[in-house]
Amino acid sequence: MINITLPDGSVKSFKDGITPFDVAKSISDGLARNIISAKFNNQTIETSTKLSTDGDLILYTWNDTEGKKAFWHSSAHILAQAIEELYPNSKLTIGPAIENGFYYDVDFGDDSINDKDFKKIEDKMLEIARGKHDFNMRAVSKTEALELYKDNIYKTELIENLEDGSITFCDHSTFTDLCRGGHIPNTGIIKAVKILSVAGAYWRGDENNTQLTRVYGISFPKQKELKEYLELLEEAKKRDHRKLGKELELFTFSQKVGQGLPLWLPKGAALRERLENFLKVAQKKAGYEMVVTPHIGQKELYVTSGHYAKYGEDSFQPITTPKADEEFLLKPMNCPHHCEIYNNTQWSYKDLPKRYAEFGTVYRYEQSGELHGLTRVRGFTQDDAHIFCTPDQLDQEFKNVIDLVLYVFGSLGFENFTAQVSLRDPEKPEKYIGSDENWEKAELAILNAAKEKNLNYVIETGEAAFYGPKLDFMVKDALGRQWQLGTIQVDYNLPERFNLTYKGSDNESHRPVMIHRAPFGSMERFIAILLEHTGGNFPLWLMPTQVSVLTLSEKYENYGQNVLNLLENNEIRAIIDNRSETIGKKIREAELNKTPFMIIIGEQEEKENKISVRKHGGEDLGMISVEEFSEIINSEINKTKKQF
Amino acid sequence: MINITLPDGSVKSFKDGITPFDVAKSISDGLARNIISAKFNNQTIETSTKLSTDGDLILYTWNDTEGKKAFWHSSAHILAQAIEELYPNSKLTIGPAIENGFYYDVDFGDDSINDKDFKKIEDKMLEIARGKHDFNMRAVSKTEALELYKDNIYKTELIENLEDGSITFCDHSTFTDLCRGGHIPNTGIIKAVKILSVAGAYWRGDENNTQLTRVYGISFPKQKELKEYLELLEEAKKRDHRKLGKELELFTFSQKVGQGLPLWLPKGAALRERLENFLKVAQKKAGYEMVVTPHIGQKELYVTSGHYAKYGEDSFQPITTPKADEEFLLKPMNCPHHCEIYNNTQWSYKDLPKRYAEFGTVYRYEQSGELHGLTRVRGFTQDDAHIFCTPDQLDQEFKNVIDLVLYVFGSLGFENFTAQVSLRDPEKPEKYIGSDENWEKAELAILNAAKEKNLNYVIETGEAAFYGPKLDFMVKDALGRQWQLGTIQVDYNLPERFNLTYKGSDNESHRPVMIHRAPFGSMERFIAILLEHTGGNFPLWLMPTQVSVLTLSEKYENYGQNVLNLLENNEIRAIIDNRSETIGKKIREAELNKTPFMIIIGEQEEKENKISVRKHGGEDLGMISVEEFSEIINSEINKTKKQF
Repeated sequence: MINITLPDGSVKSFKDGITPFDVAKSISDGLARNIISAKFNNQTIETSTKLSTDGDLILYTWNDTEGKKAFWHSSAHILAQAIEELYPNSKLTIGPAIENGFYYDVDFGDDSINDKDFKKIEDKMLEIARGKHDFNMRAVSKTEALELYKDNIYKTELIENLEDGSITFCDHSTFTDLCRGGHIPNTGIIKAVKILSVAGAYWRGDENNTQLTRVYGISFPKQKELKEYLELLEEAKKRDHRKLGKELELFTFSQKVGQGLPLWLPKGAALRERLENFLKVAQKKAGYEMVVTPHIGQKELYVTSGHYAKYGEDSFQPITTPKADEEFLLKPMNCPHHCEIYNNTQWSYKDLPKRYAEFGTVYRYEQSGELHGLTRVRGFTQDDAHIFCTPDQLDQEFKNVIDLVLYVFGSLGFENFTAQVSLRDPEKPEKYIGSDENWEKAELAILNAAKEKNLNYVIETGEAAFYGPKLDFMVKDALGRQWQLGTIQVDYNLPERFNLTYKGSDNESHRPVMIHRAPFGSMERFIAILLEHTGGNFPLWLMPTQVSVLTLSEKYENYGQNVLNLLENNEIRAIIDNRSETIGKKIREAELNKTPFMIIIGEQEEKENKISVRKHGGEDLGMISVEEFSEIINSEINKTKKQF
Repeated sequence: MINITLPDGSVKSFKDGITPFDVAKSISDGLARNIISAKFNNQTIETSTKLSTDGDLILYTWNDTEGKKAFWHSSAHILAQAIEELYPNSKLTIGPAIENGFYYDVDFGDDSINDKDFKKIEDKMLEIARGKHDFNMRAVSKTEALELYKDNIYKTELIENLEDGSITFCDHSTFTDLCRGGHIPNTGIIKAVKILSVAGAYWRGDENNTQLTRVYGISFPKQKELKEYLELLEEAKKRDHRKLGKELELFTFSQKVGQGLPLWLPKGAALRERLENFLKVAQKKAGYEMVVTPHIGQKELYVTSGHYAKYGEDSFQPITTPKADEEFLLKPMNCPHHCEIYNNTQWSYKDLPKRYAEFGTVYRYEQSGELHGLTRVRGFTQDDAHIFCTPDQLDQEFKNVIDLVLYVFGSLGFENFTAQVSLRDPEKPEKYIGSDENWEKAELAILNAAKEKNLNYVIETGEAAFYGPKLDFMVKDALGRQWQLGTIQVDYNLPERFNLTYKGSDNESHRPVMIHRAPFGSMERFIAILLEHTGGNFPLWLMPTQVSVLTLSEKYENYGQNVLNLLENNEIRAIIDNRSETIGKKIREAELNKTPFMIIIGEQEEKENKISVRKHGGEDLGMISVEEFSEIINSEINKTKKQF
């Protein structure tokens, strides 16, 4: 008999040789029907693997990330089989599950495939799936393995790097693949399949190697789920911030200036400034002080801070001077500069906390292949701040920062978020700096704050930075995609490295604690996520153009201009479209530009000194006065912008 | 007989051999008494030089820059004589006139001097001056010259680089110096002398050479003028922006971050932001659009723009990447980035002008010895903008920029300024790019604009940039010192280099004209000058703290806080000083911080719900209500801020 511990802590005894599937069945038939993957003592296994020792067992269904992983890994086997059958000259390499689906890298030899071939592959995959083949793992010797793949240089290379005795194959139907395991029980539960795209990929990611074809696919246990996924994908494409950024004329890139270095066009720069001003106002209320620091610093500064050790080799290289007697770095972080500002004055405990904020542009080198729109760039502006406080103040300061972050999320329509509290690994004290007492105080401060602010949080032990614990916010966007936004970190390291001090009430010198925080994270990344979240329909208070005044004909320009001036006097951002175009075209364009309110001006409106108002999407507010409209729009603005 | 043309255009005939002094005497005895220097055919000569050809003669008095130059150059001779007599082992090198006074670089050998020796040198100089010695030039052969200086390696080196036949000496009293000329007639008119300071200076400015002692002095024809100058110097010291920047906690430098890279402290950052916002509001009204661009760009970008040729070698060196496959530069100018933004869209003539503005931080390497506070730094933020317009729009755009610059000067209390219009040298067309027609149009546009705006301007022919003519504003500060502030430049070069186009009404592709302009110049330099101009007493609208609420004792904190809130609701920047200090101390500190208004709160004020108001400098406004005070301060703010 063996003892199996389940995730809820319950322990059950089973006969030696029991499988995860059997364990599931002992719980309920329903679970047995749905279980598609398992982990035993933290190792991924098959649902048919026989267990012969005591241990912890976790059973996964499609609803678990691990379940999806097994589902897509198994689908990759079926894709490989389909390709082998359809393209007999092709050579398979590797094919893992990924976040959304799976891929297989294939050397098609003289063949090639394009999207016209996708249907054929999908049909073949579904045909295989319908065969309801079990996935069966078996161990093979290195010699056997090399023999099977004697015509495939890629698999041969993989096998040569494996140890004899550790090599396993997976069989299903007539197909066999080199594989470490982690499959669903049977091909039959794969009901829907889609080949998404093909792309070039170098063997082992090395551009000196052969270029292979990466075939991307996804699969589901229900046709309906595939349909929903494809709709989501379609919607995500429409909301792609690179597409919207172009359509809304927010930003651009120039090959001459350089990749990953965004140029903010007037409308984008205005949007950025509005977001910055929004945060500035809140920060001022919260007692922050703005500072301005240069974008470079002496290399030594970053050696002191430790950033050179972290970023130096892999980032933009040092800037030398004509006589080569000085070395500077583009700043990868603002903290060293803020530490130097703190150090400019001898502070007393009565002066603390000091809260220095800066919209600080930092530069970090990313490989050109890793660049992506505004989410992965080489230069970005952090909404950075550093709080220098006494250990006793940490608790309250941390809570205040959470309040600020929640205010920011609330005002920007991110309702769905969780928090992750990263603590140190208590078993590896050598990984962290700072006294136990300070760590305990800091971790307690974060946990208390998270509780008191009713955050929905998970604890990740061992995920703290070496210099202190932290709290990150994970936000779900309108399409259910998760983004990391906003971070609050406690730091005992830099105060030490920069020898920061304050005079305590005991008249002795003490070390302050530092908090790093950025509610947006960076302006670039935040605006990208906001674009994808809202599809460009920003909260009303943030919209570049809140109102478009559309004249029925050029005759009404004067009246339109009067209306425009009245709106501007009420601090409403409005433009006028007085072109000699039809009102239909003007409305269509204003809709396309996501304009929240359209005001239509014609003969009757001028005569009655009123305006006809239409909301984005079509709702008609009828003919009202400018004053009535101002009240409506201002009340809507106040609804979208939270109070701080 | 020879014909002498005077600056007013009049031509007079004189006997061959006449001197400038004689010409002055022929005009008036008064002029003859005051003339101390002269130029003939654009060559500096002595007032005793005999003229033997026709030519243009200009006579200078102490009131002319050229007159002062001769006066101080002659004083340097006397300084040299005094040093030679007092320190027989010293070796003289060179000693020119400078903007304010003169210096002489001396190798004192085993001797050294410090400020205790100044009096002795001044007395010796005055003794020599009182001897009323004439300055007499004479030609010498190279052999003679080398013989006289056989014990002076410095003068020997200078003479060896001169051509035989071109060498002249100047004698006065018992002293002789190697000299090209340009003296006052007689030592007797030097009535007041001051040795100002000594500093180290390398022979020929090369740090590999011997270090010499540079002795700085100044002299005047009247004792009273020296006294005034020294008072001005004292006042300038008090207003030194580096001193005020520290006292007012505006900015600092950190050796760790690097020399010439200012860190803006909270009060300085707020001041900067207020100035930026002030300009932003005006620029928005004037139709500018803000953009944001990165602080680096690919090296190629600056090769295209021509900036690499200009700054490359002598500035911060290129930034490479880990694989050394890309090269970037810290941007020395914002224009290339703005050109790339222009190029992002295909414009029609109907879309122009486009006016892109950015507070763009640029980086230029300066030798550490050249750095000075905020006026000479390695990183600075330009209030930059580039206007892209059709040639026909240039005229109006240029005038609009002048209006903006005048608005800025007016609102910041710079009443005393002149303009300099720099045109091309029509005799050297090869120095300039762009068609004659465009140059004529642009120069005419600038001249018309300068005339129409009633600017007090001078024309400097040949001072245009190679890419276009320009207009610079020269401002006099409260101490009469002149600063260059604000520039407007026309550019035909970058539109060519970046292939900028717009579609004209003829449907053909045309080149736009660019205007570069920066009313402040840079935030750093402008704030430095503003500090020195105002001594920190900024215009009321700009003051960091407009009002300080001082409580007579801590009992009145609540009432004081109420007053503070009322003021803040009225958008008045106020702080409260509720420390347990005497009211006298609080007032003194508020005065020191240049606070324009102090509000004193005590028992009576609280009882009557009023406030006692005192202005910076001591004026008492009595006990009034907060509402009355708000009216007073707002009316004063409006007085200092001009309308745009």
